[in-house]
Amino acid sequence: LSHSVSGPLRKIDFSVNLIEATYIATRPDRDAEELAEAIAREQSLEIVRELIPDSIAASHLGRVLAVDELNDSQFALRIGYPEHLASGQVGQLLHLVYGNVSFYPRIRLTGLALPKSLVNELGGPAAGLPGIREYIQVADRALLMTVLKPRGSTPEHLADLALRFARGGGDIVKDDQNLVERDIETFRRRVGACARAIDQAAQVTGRRCLYLPHVSGSGDHLERQLDQVVELGLPGVVMCTWVMGLETAASAARQRGLMWLSHPAMAGVFAESADHGVSTPVLLGTLARVAGADLSIFPGRGGRIESGHDAESSTCQALTEPLGDLKPTFPCLGGGKRLDQLAETAARLGPDLAIVVGGDLLRQGDQLETATRQAIAQLEAG
Amino acid sequence: LSHSVSGPLRKIDFSVNLIEATYIATRPDRDAEELAEAIAREQSLEIVRELIPDSIAASHLGRVLAVDELNDSQFALRIGYPEHLASGQVGQLLHLVYGNVSFYPRIRLTGLALPKSLVNELGGPAAGLPGIREYIQVADRALLMTVLKPRGSTPEHLADLALRFARGGGDIVKDDQNLVERDIETFRRRVGACARAIDQAAQVTGRRCLYLPHVSGSGDHLERQLDQVVELGLPGVVMCTWVMGLETAASAARQRGLMWLSHPAMAGVFAESADHGVSTPVLLGTLARVAGADLSIFPGRGGRIESGHDAESSTCQALTEPLGDLKPTFPCLGGGKRLDQLAETAARLGPDLAIVVGGDLLRQGDQLETATRQAIAQLEAG
Repeated sequence: LSHSVSGPLRKIDFSVNLIEATYIATRPDRDAEELAEAIAREQSLEIVRELIPDSIAASHLGRVLAVDELNDSQFALRIGYPEHLASGQVGQLLHLVYGNVSFYPRIRLTGLALPKSLVNELGGPAAGLPGIREYIQVADRALLMTVLKPRGSTPEHLADLALRFARGGGDIVKDDQNLVERDIETFRRRVGACARAIDQAAQVTGRRCLYLPHVSGSGDHLERQLDQVVELGLPGVVMCTWVMGLETAASAARQRGLMWLSHPAMAGVFAESADHGVSTPVLLGTLARVAGADLSIFPGRGGRIESGHDAESSTCQALTEPLGDLKPTFPCLGGGKRLDQLAETAARLGPDLAIVVGGDLLRQGDQLETATRQAIAQLEAG
Repeated sequence: LSHSVSGPLRKIDFSVNLIEATYIATRPDRDAEELAEAIAREQSLEIVRELIPDSIAASHLGRVLAVDELNDSQFALRIGYPEHLASGQVGQLLHLVYGNVSFYPRIRLTGLALPKSLVNELGGPAAGLPGIREYIQVADRALLMTVLKPRGSTPEHLADLALRFARGGGDIVKDDQNLVERDIETFRRRVGACARAIDQAAQVTGRRCLYLPHVSGSGDHLERQLDQVVELGLPGVVMCTWVMGLETAASAARQRGLMWLSHPAMAGVFAESADHGVSTPVLLGTLARVAGADLSIFPGRGGRIESGHDAESSTCQALTEPLGDLKPTFPCLGGGKRLDQLAETAARLGPDLAIVVGGDLLRQGDQLETATRQAIAQLEAG
């Protein structure tokens, strides 16, 4: 049933660069081709067809590229949007491909192919996977990441966890995304204590663990946290992209020249319905990468949180495959992974992966440093 | 089956103010009470129970308040989070009540009761419903809102639409959320033209139509748009809250003293699955209101976009019922409503409602002013 468009759209100039979005429509509420036309119009111009002059249709209207019947209940709708509709902004790109259609029943965005010019304009990660590897001086194995928690702990306790992980040769330590302060002084005390612990460990190990504090909020409060991070000489931060807004997170990091780990909190609203929302490879893969995330956490198989609908390997692929001139983003598998899953996980997904082990490492207590050392040895052997 | 907690949580200090979140679990993947405990822990401290010292549990751990069996497949889980976990930030509040649990299968947030102290700290709308009514000098009837589009039109064309709507006595005109510019000069030309049209109409009608331009993006680009809006003497803006981030939108408006219309683009990812996400009354009602939206658009019955799962009346209620010291937010029914639905809609939902009629008004062409006048007369009669 794949076909090109005809009829009312035939005047369209197909030489313009297109953003190609593929939607899966499950049990479509109308004729599939009609639905595809409706989505193309909804997302680009959101107005009845009769009110779109031909000149604007040619330059601005989304166009149906193909409608394919996949099975008894599903169709793949491939729609092209003129590149300039994204206005060179990643927030607008997200809005363009899924804003209003999020209210249509059973429409899931599962594919997103971007023109090279747009990809390069958005720019992607400043440091990315190679920058992370260079910072921590680990050329080619999977990485171990841990998490400082719980909220409510003293700065000294959190700094001690960071110290022992870093002394054990751990690669990356991030703040739990629940570590949120309402005043900058408390933030500075906590983050400063952890930064000093990392320094102290580096003097012992001769190698620098990457520490990423969590920043949150908006406006002046966010700015002050970012200023503090820069002042403490730290290279990057954790942000909850899908709480703060993809573009807010991206520009906050970019303006300070900071690395940025994208945490997936709230992304389940996009990803977790089988027939609605945005697939994980598109959301936490392609979109996080073009926005410039240097690291992107996504939930995968095994552990406390499992993402049911999308393959983890395709998310890794979206983060690392050739894409314009962009650097790859470091794929990070999160969601409560355990130490005993490290070897198998690295074998399954390859060396370009950071595995997040939080609680299962912290529960080692006095043995945290030793357990970290053993875990790293496992990854080195793998 | 409703019951209070017992056992391991009995040491908790129940005198602390709680944020009460109610989740509907459909076909829970484990024992309902166990699931409730897991959510309470996931959302507050996200760590294995054994690593939470008693002192932190007492002050920081979410607690199960009730587990009620609703029917064969559904349970209501009521969970209390200590108020201070929201850190006085609306983004963190959203994160707290649904961040990680968005990755749990079939868990929907359907109720949110906030302590008065938190509500008042967040502050809600600066102008709100009474401020809007005062600005446009309409005391007690439902309002008519239209939309300037399509993208790609000249500033003169859009300004002409605004002029004729305002001369016809229309109440509110907003930019389509697809009107996005990548440079500030183009933004200024378009918005300036529309602002002058509104001025011109006010000289004829003796009454001022509320014009809300759309601002988007992040960082400096967003700031420059807001500066322009202020410079043009306009009182407010439209923002796509769920693209920009709830808190980013809120603080952008607050810092400039601007009114703010919250557009629901992308909110369908939260609202449109029956058994997952966040209900419309909580998301586009309570959360938009405490964040400070002066107007909140939500899709309702009738029209191009219908929201299938939540009653429009309960969203109106969440936006207007007594809530701390907060002003009400103006409920706006959007999603492609038609002129022939005005009377019935106003009768159904009452006078504290703005009805968004875009395409069906714009298609009146030369008769736009007359059609607006007739529509307003209908609302006045209703």
